[in-house]
Amino acid sequence: MKTSAKFYHAGCPVCLAAESAVVNYLDRSKVDLEIVHLGDAKGRVAEAEKAGVKSVPALVIDGQALHLNFGADIAVLR
Amino acid sequence: MKTSAKFYHAGCPVCLAAESAVVNYLDRSKVDLEIVHLGDAKGRVAEAEKAGVKSVPALVIDGQALHLNFGADIAVLR
Repeated sequence: MKTSAKFYHAGCPVCLAAESAVVNYLDRSKVDLEIVHLGDAKGRVAEAEKAGVKSVPALVIDGQALHLNFGADIAVLR
Repeated sequence: MKTSAKFYHAGCPVCLAAESAVVNYLDRSKVDLEIVHLGDAKGRVAEAEKAGVKSVPALVIDGQALHLNFGADIAVLR
């Protein structure tokens, strides 16, 4: 069974660089990936925070929030 | 052609959690992954720093250093 993962970002340059690695190299045979732009989907900031996301870009996978470098604090996206 | 990637860590709890995600979900059909424990391989700290690694755990892929959460500053590993 595939695991589901969410990549949260805000369109920042650091976000785009990280997104490229995630999109290119995550094993899609094991992972269903959803990409969420929190600048466009402000209604989902709370969901990201609940998953442990403190900043973007971040990948939530297997219940773990992995912050990939630092683009922006999630507080500025609320 | 596969790209090569290096996952640098230092055995810290944050490192192990990130390593689990990297090992489980990186697409090995596209990536040759090497895992480097900088506590055991101090001679490779300079190589990691040259690749842009500021802290561990970090994944260097396509010439990009992706810091995955924060376990330890690379300075303490020199």
